[in-house]
Amino acid sequence: MSRPVFIVGGPNLGRLGRREPEIYGDLTWEELGRKCKQWGRDLALDVEFLQSDHEGDLVQMIHRATDEGRGLILNAAAYTHTSVAVRDAVAACDVPVIELHLTNPAAREEFRRNNLLCDVVTATVNGFGVDGYRLALTGLKGLLDRG
Amino acid sequence: MSRPVFIVGGPNLGRLGRREPEIYGDLTWEELGRKCKQWGRDLALDVEFLQSDHEGDLVQMIHRATDEGRGLILNAAAYTHTSVAVRDAVAACDVPVIELHLTNPAAREEFRRNNLLCDVVTATVNGFGVDGYRLALTGLKGLLDRG
Amino acid sequence: MSRPVFIVGGPNLGRLGRREPEIYGDLTWEELGRKCKQWGRDLALDVEFLQSDHEGDLVQMIHRATDEGRGLILNAAAYTHTSVAVRDAVAACDVPVIELHLTNPAAREEFRRNNLLCDVVTATVNGFGVDGYRLALTGLKGLLDRG
Amino acid sequence: MSRPVFIVGGPNLGRLGRREPEIYGDLTWEELGRKCKQWGRDLALDVEFLQSDHEGDLVQMIHRATDEGRGLILNAAAYTHTSVAVRDAVAACDVPVIELHLTNPAAREEFRRNNLLCDVVTATVNGFGVDGYRLALTGLKGLLDRG
Amino acid sequence: MSRPVFIVGGPNLGRLGRREPEIYGDLTWEELGRKCKQWGRDLALDVEFLQSDHEGDLVQMIHRATDEGRGLILNAAAYTHTSVAVRDAVAACDVPVIELHLTNPAAREEFRRNNLLCDVVTATVNGFGVDGYRLALTGLKGLLDRG
Amino acid sequence: MSRPVFIVGGPNLGRLGRREPEIYGDLTWEELGRKCKQWGRDLALDVEFLQSDHEGDLVQMIHRATDEGRGLILNAAAYTHTSVAVRDAVAACDVPVIELHLTNPAAREEFRRNNLLCDVVTATVNGFGVDGYRLALTGLKGLLDRG
Amino acid sequence: MSRPVFIVGGPNLGRLGRREPEIYGDLTWEELGRKCKQWGRDLALDVEFLQSDHEGDLVQMIHRATDEGRGLILNAAAYTHTSVAVRDAVAACDVPVIELHLTNPAAREEFRRNNLLCDVVTATVNGFGVDGYRLALTGLKGLLDRG
Amino acid sequence: MSRPVFIVGGPNLGRLGRREPEIYGDLTWEELGRKCKQWGRDLALDVEFLQSDHEGDLVQMIHRATDEGRGLILNAAAYTHTSVAVRDAVAACDVPVIELHLTNPAAREEFRRNNLLCDVVTATVNGFGVDGYRLALTGLKGLLDRG
Amino acid sequence: MSRPVFIVGGPNLGRLGRREPEIYGDLTWEELGRKCKQWGRDLALDVEFLQSDHEGDLVQMIHRATDEGRGLILNAAAYTHTSVAVRDAVAACDVPVIELHLTNPAAREEFRRNNLLCDVVTATVNGFGVDGYRLALTGLKGLLDRG
Amino acid sequence: MSRPVFIVGGPNLGRLGRREPEIYGDLTWEELGRKCKQWGRDLALDVEFLQSDHEGDLVQMIHRATDEGRGLILNAAAYTHTSVAVRDAVAACDVPVIELHLTNPAAREEFRRNNLLCDVVTATVNGFGVDGYRLALTGLKGLLDRG
Amino acid sequence: MSRPVFIVGGPNLGRLGRREPEIYGDLTWEELGRKCKQWGRDLALDVEFLQSDHEGDLVQMIHRATDEGRGLILNAAAYTHTSVAVRDAVAACDVPVIELHLTNPAAREEFRRNNLLCDVVTATVNGFGVDGYRLALTGLKGLLDRG
Amino acid sequence: MSRPVFIVGGPNLGRLGRREPEIYGDLTWEELGRKCKQWGRDLALDVEFLQSDHEGDLVQMIHRATDEGRGLILNAAAYTHTSVAVRDAVAACDVPVIELHLTNPAAREEFRRNNLLCDVVTATVNGFGVDGYRLALTGLKGLLDRG
Repeated sequence: MSRPVFIVGGPNLGRLGRREPEIYGDLTWEELGRKCKQWGRDLALDVEFLQSDHEGDLVQMIHRATDEGRGLILNAAAYTHTSVAVRDAVAACDVPVIELHLTNPAAREEFRRNNLLCDVVTATVNGFGVDGYRLALTGLKGLLDRG
Repeated sequence: MSRPVFIVGGPNLGRLGRREPEIYGDLTWEELGRKCKQWGRDLALDVEFLQSDHEGDLVQMIHRATDEGRGLILNAAAYTHTSVAVRDAVAACDVPVIELHLTNPAAREEFRRNNLLCDVVTATVNGFGVDGYRLALTGLKGLLDRG
Repeated sequence: MSRPVFIVGGPNLGRLGRREPEIYGDLTWEELGRKCKQWGRDLALDVEFLQSDHEGDLVQMIHRATDEGRGLILNAAAYTHTSVAVRDAVAACDVPVIELHLTNPAAREEFRRNNLLCDVVTATVNGFGVDGYRLALTGLKGLLDRG
Repeated sequence: MSRPVFIVGGPNLGRLGRREPEIYGDLTWEELGRKCKQWGRDLALDVEFLQSDHEGDLVQMIHRATDEGRGLILNAAAYTHTSVAVRDAVAACDVPVIELHLTNPAAREEFRRNNLLCDVVTATVNGFGVDGYRLALTGLKGLLDRG
Repeated sequence: MSRPVFIVGGPNLGRLGRREPEIYGDLTWEELGRKCKQWGRDLALDVEFLQSDHEGDLVQMIHRATDEGRGLILNAAAYTHTSVAVRDAVAACDVPVIELHLTNPAAREEFRRNNLLCDVVTATVNGFGVDGYRLALTGLKGLLDRG
Repeated sequence: MSRPVFIVGGPNLGRLGRREPEIYGDLTWEELGRKCKQWGRDLALDVEFLQSDHEGDLVQMIHRATDEGRGLILNAAAYTHTSVAVRDAVAACDVPVIELHLTNPAAREEFRRNNLLCDVVTATVNGFGVDGYRLALTGLKGLLDRG
Repeated sequence: MSRPVFIVGGPNLGRLGRREPEIYGDLTWEELGRKCKQWGRDLALDVEFLQSDHEGDLVQMIHRATDEGRGLILNAAAYTHTSVAVRDAVAACDVPVIELHLTNPAAREEFRRNNLLCDVVTATVNGFGVDGYRLALTGLKGLLDRG
Repeated sequence: MSRPVFIVGGPNLGRLGRREPEIYGDLTWEELGRKCKQWGRDLALDVEFLQSDHEGDLVQMIHRATDEGRGLILNAAAYTHTSVAVRDAVAACDVPVIELHLTNPAAREEFRRNNLLCDVVTATVNGFGVDGYRLALTGLKGLLDRG
Repeated sequence: MSRPVFIVGGPNLGRLGRREPEIYGDLTWEELGRKCKQWGRDLALDVEFLQSDHEGDLVQMIHRATDEGRGLILNAAAYTHTSVAVRDAVAACDVPVIELHLTNPAAREEFRRNNLLCDVVTATVNGFGVDGYRLALTGLKGLLDRG
Repeated sequence: MSRPVFIVGGPNLGRLGRREPEIYGDLTWEELGRKCKQWGRDLALDVEFLQSDHEGDLVQMIHRATDEGRGLILNAAAYTHTSVAVRDAVAACDVPVIELHLTNPAAREEFRRNNLLCDVVTATVNGFGVDGYRLALTGLKGLLDRG
Repeated sequence: MSRPVFIVGGPNLGRLGRREPEIYGDLTWEELGRKCKQWGRDLALDVEFLQSDHEGDLVQMIHRATDEGRGLILNAAAYTHTSVAVRDAVAACDVPVIELHLTNPAAREEFRRNNLLCDVVTATVNGFGVDGYRLALTGLKGLLDRG
Repeated sequence: MSRPVFIVGGPNLGRLGRREPEIYGDLTWEELGRKCKQWGRDLALDVEFLQSDHEGDLVQMIHRATDEGRGLILNAAAYTHTSVAVRDAVAACDVPVIELHLTNPAAREEFRRNNLLCDVVTATVNGFGVDGYRLALTGLKGLLDRG
């Protein structure tokens, strides 16, 4: 019985495609989900695709990824900068966790330099836009294959 | 079909009138809602009045204000000082957003000087107590009229 | 014998209408004064309208507001961020003081986050442009009526 | 009709016993609940035992403790370091609140030194592991007896 | 031959009961000593009760607790915030050390947030007043029993 | 031809006796001036007594004290914390300068810890209220006598 | 009708030649004015030479330079480090502004590193003593010629 | 005539395989170069592979990548945290620049949080070890194809 | 039975007259004691004159001043900047405490700006050298007479 | 045998004219060199014109300027903000050193406020673009003539 | 009559050999004293070997070294980081003072980076363990011989 | 075949004897090299003596010391305070590294307190001037003998 890899999106990501499309493009979150599932199939990965605006939901999705999954790609959006709860859930994770941001947070407001996740994740992919999900899945596949 | 203006209250505001009435007065949140709807009618504004203790709910109420409304009066309470998620939702808003606090946060604890919303809102009204809602609605009306 | 409410403007405000009109609009300080006096009359408030580029003058205008007036709307402009003297004068005031800024100072340079007045004033109105003076007068009227 | 004392646990605590058992032991949160209820009965205290991963839920549990309870033992976990909303709820509490951590947060990451609750709680018990709940109940009993 | 548990008090604690009794109560340090010895006997612990205003004396009392004792309850008072010497002595201790404060230091001056001991002690009990000593002895007993 | 010693007061000091008399007493600035002149006569010092709310005036009064006087007692009030101009004038002074505050500024707001004058004055007298002027004159006399 | 270039000096500069001549030389401010006017004539520039110890005067001189002049050389002295009012006046200037200091402020007290003007002026000349005025006039001429 | 993509390595990277192999693996820099050239060929990219311990050399390699290349993968190693010169060269680059680190710098010393490049690069890949070069080449290919 | 006023000196003050006499003068601590006793007699004050290099001794001397004395002149020397224990003892004092320094600590090393006593003492006299003791006794006499 | 004055340029300056010409103009470094040599001849100065991207080379060029030259105009570019080595070389220089920047670094990123050279150079010329070299040579000539 | 060189050890050093021997080795303080005296004899130095846990004792030992000795090797242990009193005593010393630490304090906790002595001592020897005393005596001998 | 111990000097050290001889003495770097080789022979150490002004060269010299040598004495001069590259090279070193400074850097500018090497070296010798090299060689010999 194969276990999935999880892709988890944080607050405001559900509005992808509608929110500031000049920055984030016009692909919606649902369309991105379909793309990721296809990229996953190409890599023989079974992708579960989740999003929530609630910090507590993200904590529980990470719990599920730990219990039921083989790996996690996490775009925690704003909670990257404020959530010790998400950090604690990631730190207790025993599967690889890849942090992903569509844009480069360092090129934005000063407070986005405060990243509570970056030192507890396995790896990071930033700034490639939607294509970053393909790279992260490829990289996660590599991590899972090398064990 | 007229679209409403939104009034959104953050955590602990549902307890208005019961929580520290010597500071906040004894008007309850529900009574304030009725007053705001009346003040709205006087200004020809259709007021939708919402509150939640959940950060994610506030994010979604702001999404709704963007999609269905003409403007937003936001008293994010504690999330003013901690929520990048609410900030991101406000920053992506294309309707005017007025920040409101019943009291003057600057006169309280040092950490309340850290305000994550104040540089992305349109305008601010602080320290007038319940009457601030009337002023904010008046000001919002002016902003909407001047376009 | 009715006592006036004071409106006091700080440095560079005398150049309103000529200085960066794309930001501040093209209404001059003198025209604003006439508007404020009219708004005051509508609210049964007798408005005294003053401006100076000198820190010491602002201190003395606040002394006058304390001695001869019923309330004060203060746009201290640059002195908001640097003047302990103005702060001391405000703190010793026994009439309500409303801080007002035409734009939202938090959306400007970092050093404007340092506000020496905000914790000693009664209330704040920011970011409504010239209309903020109407709101502040309305709010001040409310404060005076409620005692 | 006796009112309960509340024990409230924050994010990730529901995974006690499964998460990093070498640090937190292998007792689960449910088993801890049964122990606390028993310790409560020994002290003639009626224990209500709650947990949530959601900041807003913690705010509401504290509201309930204020309205329906006689005292509160709060292990806010990660929200200790980030939640002004929980802080505001605690600060408005008129029953004694005891902060509890299983381990010693000061011996962990630097950012855990930022504690938003410690100056509004009544008392603190840290670092005794599960036994801390017994001590906190004993201390709370003393506070309630002494009035 | 049973070894004692030590209770060590720091500067100004000898004036307990006389110094600011509205905060610390009117029990004197000597009376507290008699209570602690009694509480110790109830728990089958042999309590040695010491106090000094001298930093160097505290260092040596901790040395003694390491060499001759089974555990230590330390209220270092002001030295909590300034003494690396006391910290070094505690860090080299191979018996459990419980930090205790009568009141909640976090609710006092900012500089009391600087605590040099809290990350090298085993556990902490704050804010229960004199009753904290009973809880700390109970907790220490538990630590010694569990080994 | 004897040269005077100067006593210079800064912003808001002209309102002594009327401003917060519970803190500063009800002696007015003019009455204080008469007292100082008398204390001066007792010490064979010819006192010139000045006050201004303007930073630039203080700069010029210090210039006069340098050119025409034998020594200076300076209560720069708020400018103590903000004026590099006053500091530069004091630093270039070749007569003794005694800084004086009626109350103890260190016991007030944090920003009053920022003192731009204290490292360029000769000596300081704080916290004795109006009697501090008598002590400062006595001390200045000593400095002048010892030369 | 030719418009002048302005040279504006800040607090304490009027005492040039008398104040610390071992640092600033023994040329007085008046003599410097005559030199500057001569250097101006050599460059076909009509120099207006002003000084004040008052922050508000500097603000107004900069207003005049904007309205009546072609360019401004500003030695704001102490107000360089403390005056947001002067900064705001400079920032609203639509003629070139050259900041000038006789000595090198960076080689002096730490607080002189805080420069409120340097990011809103066009160019800077520091450390050449009196000769800096000749260089600044030369540079200003070049800026005016290049348009 | 096809232009290459550049891969540039900074100080100490030439010792890859010999330096702390338990962290960085035992693949040498030369072997990595051969791998990258092969991965490049698979993606139809012509890889030029360079390394230097000298900051100035890195500046010049980035100049070359700008003039002769289509894109750049930069592992500036230690210069990431200290070199404004490398930053300036990257900022002036008009080809895409991907920052890469073998490990996750955020999980190391505090000073590695100071990253001078991250806000001027196009994208980032961290923590995938040697496989990160394959991902970065894949991502760079995507950026070049999308234009 | 008259109670004395205490003069307490901190570490290194016993070496007055021998330590850096170009700064502190060549009067020894013992000679200063005799002078102070004489100045005391002139003011009808019974002076007790004490010194210690030990922080704990200073704490106990302040205890004595509280219990047996009418007022305290405290030159805590280095402990001014490091001793929370001395601060706590002063803060619990119910007699007036005058802080005294021979020189002006603000004109010395940066760390001497950190003063732990200045906000809990009644008044301060700095920079008058030995003559400061005469002024402090005079001021203390005034405080005792005014009650 | 006349000794030259040195003009030394730091990293990325060799690309002047090609790098961001909208900011720096389209004059190349080589063309600037020819201009400077001509300006030098007009002032009877023999200009040696050097550039390197290497910190160590700048150190050695400054050594040469000390040994073989009469003065130095230094545009250290990025090393201004990071190089203690260049600073040490300048500080040990016994010829006048003029710091020059084409633009105004204070108007750029925050980290450019950290200037390691500005307190050890003789004088500074910023923000005049290429014309600044002419002014700096003129100023240097004046310094050399006045001795 | 030859005067000794002093070796002074601070708090907790008396427990050398018993405290954390895996770090500090198993040589006791007394044995180290015998070694140092022997090393001293080999260098024709008469070693006096002292230790105390009391800050005030260290101050007095340094006084003695100044009065009776030719030089001082000081391992102030924890007081290195907290004692201005010890610093003041060292700064007033007119014999050479060598600071010594058995291990490298910089490799330990962050707060040990705060060293109050290092800028007033003559020289430093860190990290050589017990052998550092031999080196420090050798170095001190050199300093004394060179005068 | 004996392997050497390396002595590596950083930027500006090649000018020893010529640069500020009143601080560093008049011994040149070459003469110091000959002395060190002689001291090495006396200790049966084969000394290789190197210097460069280039950060990258220092990195490579440390690589050589690791590969070909038995130990390293490193005076990185200015790079001590700025070079993460040198730090990384030292941290990867598997031979003992002794940091050496001729003078005491802590007694100089504030920024020299930022030392990037001190926590990765084995030991430190500061402030003995040229004689420090003899002590460091002696200490290194001891480290090599003890293994």
